[in-house]
Amino acid sequence: MLGSTFSTRGTDPAADAGGQGRRTDDVDVSGRPLHACVPDLDRFFRPDSLAVVGASDAEGRPNTGITRQLVTWAERVGARLHPVNPGRASVFGLPCHASVADLPEPVDLAVLLVADPLPVLEQLTGAKARFAVVFASGFAETGEAGAAAQERLGRAVAGSGLRLLGPNTNLNAFQAFREDLPGPAIALITQSGHQGRPVYALQELGIRLSHWAPTGNEADLETADFLSYFAGRAEVGAIAVYAEGLKDGRSFTLAADRAARNKVPVVMVKVGRTETGTRAAATHTGKLTGSDAVADAAFRQFGVIRVDGLDELQDTAALLARARPPLAEGVAVYSISGGTGAHFADLATAAGLPLPTLPEAKQAELHQWIPEYLNVSNPVDSGGHPVGDWRGRKIIDAILADPGIGVLVCPITGPFPPMSDRLALDLAEAAEATDKLVCVIWGSPVGTEEAYRTTLLGSSRVATFRTFGNCVTAVRAWLDHHRFTAGYRSPFDDAPRTPSSSARKARALLHPGRRLSEHAAKQLLRAYGIRVPREQLVTSAAGAVRAAAQVGYPVVMKASADRLAHKTELGLVKIGLTSASQVRDAYRELADIARYESLELDGVLVCQMVERGVEMVVGISQDPLFGPTVTAGLGGVLVEVLRDTAVRVPPFDAGTARDMLRELRGSRLLDGVRGAPPADTDALVDVILRVQRMALELGDGLAELDINPLMVLPRGQGACALDALAVCRQENTHD
Amino acid sequence: MLGSTFSTRGTDPAADAGGQGRRTDDVDVSGRPLHACVPDLDRFFRPDSLAVVGASDAEGRPNTGITRQLVTWAERVGARLHPVNPGRASVFGLPCHASVADLPEPVDLAVLLVADPLPVLEQLTGAKARFAVVFASGFAETGEAGAAAQERLGRAVAGSGLRLLGPNTNLNAFQAFREDLPGPAIALITQSGHQGRPVYALQELGIRLSHWAPTGNEADLETADFLSYFAGRAEVGAIAVYAEGLKDGRSFTLAADRAARNKVPVVMVKVGRTETGTRAAATHTGKLTGSDAVADAAFRQFGVIRVDGLDELQDTAALLARARPPLAEGVAVYSISGGTGAHFADLATAAGLPLPTLPEAKQAELHQWIPEYLNVSNPVDSGGHPVGDWRGRKIIDAILADPGIGVLVCPITGPFPPMSDRLALDLAEAAEATDKLVCVIWGSPVGTEEAYRTTLLGSSRVATFRTFGNCVTAVRAWLDHHRFTAGYRSPFDDAPRTPSSSARKARALLHPGRRLSEHAAKQLLRAYGIRVPREQLVTSAAGAVRAAAQVGYPVVMKASADRLAHKTELGLVKIGLTSASQVRDAYRELADIARYESLELDGVLVCQMVERGVEMVVGISQDPLFGPTVTAGLGGVLVEVLRDTAVRVPPFDAGTARDMLRELRGSRLLDGVRGAPPADTDALVDVILRVQRMALELGDGLAELDINPLMVLPRGQGACALDALAVCRQENTHD
Repeated sequence: MLGSTFSTRGTDPAADAGGQGRRTDDVDVSGRPLHACVPDLDRFFRPDSLAVVGASDAEGRPNTGITRQLVTWAERVGARLHPVNPGRASVFGLPCHASVADLPEPVDLAVLLVADPLPVLEQLTGAKARFAVVFASGFAETGEAGAAAQERLGRAVAGSGLRLLGPNTNLNAFQAFREDLPGPAIALITQSGHQGRPVYALQELGIRLSHWAPTGNEADLETADFLSYFAGRAEVGAIAVYAEGLKDGRSFTLAADRAARNKVPVVMVKVGRTETGTRAAATHTGKLTGSDAVADAAFRQFGVIRVDGLDELQDTAALLARARPPLAEGVAVYSISGGTGAHFADLATAAGLPLPTLPEAKQAELHQWIPEYLNVSNPVDSGGHPVGDWRGRKIIDAILADPGIGVLVCPITGPFPPMSDRLALDLAEAAEATDKLVCVIWGSPVGTEEAYRTTLLGSSRVATFRTFGNCVTAVRAWLDHHRFTAGYRSPFDDAPRTPSSSARKARALLHPGRRLSEHAAKQLLRAYGIRVPREQLVTSAAGAVRAAAQVGYPVVMKASADRLAHKTELGLVKIGLTSASQVRDAYRELADIARYESLELDGVLVCQMVERGVEMVVGISQDPLFGPTVTAGLGGVLVEVLRDTAVRVPPFDAGTARDMLRELRGSRLLDGVRGAPPADTDALVDVILRVQRMALELGDGLAELDINPLMVLPRGQGACALDALAVCRQENTHD
Repeated sequence: MLGSTFSTRGTDPAADAGGQGRRTDDVDVSGRPLHACVPDLDRFFRPDSLAVVGASDAEGRPNTGITRQLVTWAERVGARLHPVNPGRASVFGLPCHASVADLPEPVDLAVLLVADPLPVLEQLTGAKARFAVVFASGFAETGEAGAAAQERLGRAVAGSGLRLLGPNTNLNAFQAFREDLPGPAIALITQSGHQGRPVYALQELGIRLSHWAPTGNEADLETADFLSYFAGRAEVGAIAVYAEGLKDGRSFTLAADRAARNKVPVVMVKVGRTETGTRAAATHTGKLTGSDAVADAAFRQFGVIRVDGLDELQDTAALLARARPPLAEGVAVYSISGGTGAHFADLATAAGLPLPTLPEAKQAELHQWIPEYLNVSNPVDSGGHPVGDWRGRKIIDAILADPGIGVLVCPITGPFPPMSDRLALDLAEAAEATDKLVCVIWGSPVGTEEAYRTTLLGSSRVATFRTFGNCVTAVRAWLDHHRFTAGYRSPFDDAPRTPSSSARKARALLHPGRRLSEHAAKQLLRAYGIRVPREQLVTSAAGAVRAAAQVGYPVVMKASADRLAHKTELGLVKIGLTSASQVRDAYRELADIARYESLELDGVLVCQMVERGVEMVVGISQDPLFGPTVTAGLGGVLVEVLRDTAVRVPPFDAGTARDMLRELRGSRLLDGVRGAPPADTDALVDVILRVQRMALELGDGLAELDINPLMVLPRGQGACALDALAVCRQENTHD
């Protein structure tokens, strides 16, 4: 029966596409894995046997409370609990062991309540334990010495078969979950216990929770491991995450990819929009943080829904866990007040929710029950009175019957029992009778009303919110998630595994620690099939004249040297030269300036002059978490001022490259403005993909690449890299 | 005693600077008033006598419930109630009158429950009634016929001394307000009854409400009237507004100006961010809506705090009504979890709240009670345990004692009674002992916990929120409000009252219905002292050569004609001409193109060529609600693509003009990028103010002005209007 009232999106483990176990053998051309690591955590969450190291039942000891909670939990999950404490013979009536070496059996799980966990971990690896949890703090969150100590913990378990949760974690995994709640559940991952409480408390509103993984400092098991594991569990309808940082970008994207393949929504709060937040997070669980913009891009690429507040995390995760896939994308707003409908419609439309106008026939049908002078086109304004009698339910059913409508949202701004009680009941009953989504907003700041507590929260089919904003966010996320996963194709399936012929040529051009000359950087681009102007590097005026004749007039001339930036500002670029005499003069002038500025030129570039197009930038940067990333944006002077760029984490496909362009505020420039022809976006996308290939194949050997400007010519005419900057990695460093 | 626990920001009526009564005689040069109309609404809210027209006590009649509520309300406020109904001798035991002509006394207030209110209103004007409320709907919200009927209602009372609330309003003004709640109150204005319920319900959380004005369709009394009135009431700490549109832009800005002078915060939800919302609002209360961007700018100019959701309206209005002015701007975040502190700090910093690092000495003091390894720099992480004993209060007091801190925010993500109960109590007690602001976020989705309901909501000093987001929004608004009003100087005080000498010259250049030629538009600019290039209009090649010699080489030549746009695209602009022969050729070419395109030129402009600067646009548009508005933005091709412009509603001063520039995403262009010198922003501000003067003096006679580009030269060198477009209003129309 429960199955019928809920989404059945929960994964069928047999069809689980994201891989099982550690397939670290299959790697891409950058040497990074192509499959999520999916640890088997069944015995972590449901151990048969459990050791508590540092167990106590002495009055007043902090460990006593923890031990008591673990004893209760072990009873509930049916695990044999073995206290370990050299100072006691028994704890809470259970025989106590002096050390983990004395345990009567290899345990599935050991919980370490001791201040110095390292020796115990070492003993446990010998004792064939499967999982250890370390509560102790004072590791990476405290600075360098702590980080070193944490690394020792990681090394102690690496490759041993023992997996470690923590340090700096807590009891959250061993909370009691309500077992009377039906339907798909939320699985929760947090890097802070307190930050998980609001989601845990959702159980009091009738939302089921299946797991809570408090990952702490992530010396071994990390957020991505739990994400991968939960994404394969049939009872999990959505995964809610609170993160202060990520341990590794690739393991995270692989886990998110697995969730996307399995159509399991991931809703996430990640601290780090600001420097202050990042710093505070670092002192809490000692997480590495890369660029927030890069993490944000990775979330969007792999369908992770990012929200800002814990209230949004609650409401969005709850909706996504429980609601079935949409039968249509249209949102209908129904209210007992035209004002309320107008206000909600305004917020919903601003957030991109589609509110289709109801067909004339539907409007006529609604006017059977709603006075003619009220607006029923969507939002539907009942004017209030019809909700008090039999007409109320008719209206709701009629709206839900419209084939263009997949969601009915009814905002109730405050309890007005003669209307709102009946309305709530009608909505709850209508929700039982439809496969479409019914959302209600109960706007009273009090929230103790019967209609809210009993009728609405008592329904497993109505999605109830407290604010317009959270409802809009959640419904938008729900539609986005289903659209995203329906069209999802994993970029890891097509990621290059072997180097292209370009790679060898390109590597020969890299000089560790060097900033390449424009000419060398352009050779790098040519190696990857990116068009650059015809050009020749010359070292004499006569050579320049010969080159110009071969390149073809008019030409551009530029000084070329390693480490040379700001050529235009220094007067080291001459454009529109149309004759041998102009070329000769230009050569001399460039040489003079170089002398004056004490620049050591490797020569002067004589380049074909490229017709006007749209100036763009395309580049590569290195992120400490995600590795090489690809950027595209508007070029020219305004780049620096407006910073209109988009970034993506490889691997990604052409569709994602097109998304990057759509994301630019100035994307309309590519469509052709003021009579300009549309630009060759296909060629631009092709350049982005070639740059991605370069990023993957050269890895961090190429610390930075900046094609600026990339001149995108009119449609069909391609794109040409007019200038480029390339910085090679310092030898023997990894940033 | 009450006074001591609350803000004393409530206005002293004697010091009320915004004017009283209808001073419509003092107008600015555009003929619009310079002082808010402040109706005396004392007898509306507290009438001595009250007529209920259409009163009933018959079972089952809708008017019976309304009459009963009015009888109860009249008893509470001590008003004599006179039922009016030709069909009854008495109503609820009170003698009933056949018509308002039969009333035993002139009433302060008449509530009209009849379907056709017009004849009753006409009678009431004769009967010396002061206020009438019309519940009937079916007016402007239903379309043209209804709008005409509504105009008749307005005309019936205009100038009569009778003021009308409605039509399409309700009983909200006659709700029972709790009288046991202390401190400054929220006064509420709504254009929809249901939309006010969440704010009304704040009383159940201990927040005082003093008034509720449900303005409905605003045939006479409008939102601005109530705003002006409430802004002069001592008991009002903040005004909360829900609006679907405004009746008139000027009356609104004058009312908001009065509130700003009196330092009374106005917090407002206004529908209309989207077309859908605007349309839905129009069918609800038939409001005119101008551009949402213009309304938004007006809000910021006059310190009106705009929020999106009713939950934000509640929380922000409640905080602003009750909290004292800040003693310092610094925000300290204190939590029992480093994660919670990091997350809140991230959101707060992203919203622009200042989180100063606590001084070393203060951190050392906090480490007396907080373990050394925890971060106490701000956010302050207590690690949890200290809140359970005497140390908890010490920590709070120590943070509050820091002179840089004006606000302590303590986010509590979920109830954990051993810690959170004591923490809530400590915070409530500490809040009693300080003049600084103490905010708590209670993040449990349940909200029925004792610590929340009793300890926190029971305190009149702690500001309690349910979400991080709403706390951040409210605290930001509170700091902004006090900063804004502290530096506020009303632009109406300096608004021009008499036309400048420019106005006469300029008016002579306007031709109703015409789009002026570039040359004529530039003469308009010159009349207002805005620099244009030296230029001459010529009609022969020989004349062009003579003009070029006078203007000075190099010159620019442009075809000139009424209604001529897109000159560049048509090839009708020639730049960089350096010799007589080039000028002669250019003249012939322009004439050829004009012939080919069948354009009737009034000549060719020979213009001084202006050196490079920053291209900006400055212009005038007409808004249906606010009248002429002034726009400034980035110029050039990118304007169309990026729409990087800011708008302001006159009158405004130079400081506001500078704010416009700071608001531009590309504002850094003016500072000088890539080695360019900083631009002459003083000159740019001067042009904006001259354009404002033009907008005020020419009114809607000048339908549209667009200076594009305005070349802003390096600092000290001024700004020059290189091209301009001016469109005059059609004759005999207003729009």
